[in-house]
Amino acid sequence: MNHYPSSIRKVINHLNKLPGIGLKTAERLAMHLLSAPESEVSELSQSIGELKKTIRLCSQCFALSDSGLCRICSNTSRDNTLICVVENQADMVAIEKSGGFTGVYHLLQGLLSPMDNVGPDDIRLKELLAKIAKGNVAEVIIATGTNVEGEATASYISDCLTRFPINITRIASGVPMGGELKYVDQVTLKKAMEARHAL
Amino acid sequence: MNHYPSSIRKVINHLNKLPGIGLKTAERLAMHLLSAPESEVSELSQSIGELKKTIRLCSQCFALSDSGLCRICSNTSRDNTLICVVENQADMVAIEKSGGFTGVYHLLQGLLSPMDNVGPDDIRLKELLAKIAKGNVAEVIIATGTNVEGEATASYISDCLTRFPINITRIASGVPMGGELKYVDQVTLKKAMEARHAL
Repeated sequence: MNHYPSSIRKVINHLNKLPGIGLKTAERLAMHLLSAPESEVSELSQSIGELKKTIRLCSQCFALSDSGLCRICSNTSRDNTLICVVENQADMVAIEKSGGFTGVYHLLQGLLSPMDNVGPDDIRLKELLAKIAKGNVAEVIIATGTNVEGEATASYISDCLTRFPINITRIASGVPMGGELKYVDQVTLKKAMEARHAL
Repeated sequence: MNHYPSSIRKVINHLNKLPGIGLKTAERLAMHLLSAPESEVSELSQSIGELKKTIRLCSQCFALSDSGLCRICSNTSRDNTLICVVENQADMVAIEKSGGFTGVYHLLQGLLSPMDNVGPDDIRLKELLAKIAKGNVAEVIIATGTNVEGEATASYISDCLTRFPINITRIASGVPMGGELKYVDQVTLKKAMEARHAL
């Protein structure tokens, strides 16, 4: 690292802090930036600098947004009576990309995790309950992950929602499409067998 | 991509232009930046923004530098009579890291490549000749790569230097350390056999 001038060393150090970017990759990226057109580099720098300043959370679903309401919540053709509860933006984007969902989302911005001191008050659960209490919601799909925290959060939310006259559903678990049974883990296979359906 | 607000989309697009950073990685990095501390993000943005502005080429060896002379050229303990000719900064850093060289460098900032219209006037060759013409140089080690362009450039430079009363050497080719002979390509093996030395 001492073989580079300090301004390059700085860029390498900062890139190196990003997830999945090791020292070698950071060096390669810094070298690329040095030979890239001025405009490309300044645009990258600017867009990163502005990112945190312009982004806020949608006042309704807590998705990342440039304005008060996100694109989905402000889209009148989406079904407001169907709410999909997810952990974060990445999960929401994954479901949006799958293209099968026409309702709206609610981002918890976290999952219950007693080990990390994350309780019900630390995630956007109150806001979900308040939204449902207003009425006009027919179904809540709980689409948190299927790891320990995701399952625990799903079960906790489901308990909180039983007092409302709505359908509470959970995304299905089972064998991934295109998967071979012999490579699928035991818990998933057991879930898939239990949730078998008529053809 | 349309599932993100425009300021995130911008960051993803710009990161996606970097070598080895695909769309998925760019998305992951952007998400990381959103959750990273403000100071870390602004420092990254700033260091990238300043990179092109502060960096220049060393007036003596054409290495990247923050000031007029690079760290190596301004180091009085380096041997100025021994010049190692390399293609670029990355090659120089690789040799510096190996730790075995106490002379100075000359960066060509390119290699001869008639296919790409790169001739002797497009690389820092005149400057090398001028430096040697001043006298006070004992040996020039030509350490360009061993690909076609590197070999052609080495041979061309060697021809240019014969008129000077100096030693002209080329880094050795051979079997990489820790390598097994059966995995080494034929040309390298042939070179290694030809360059065999007494034990």
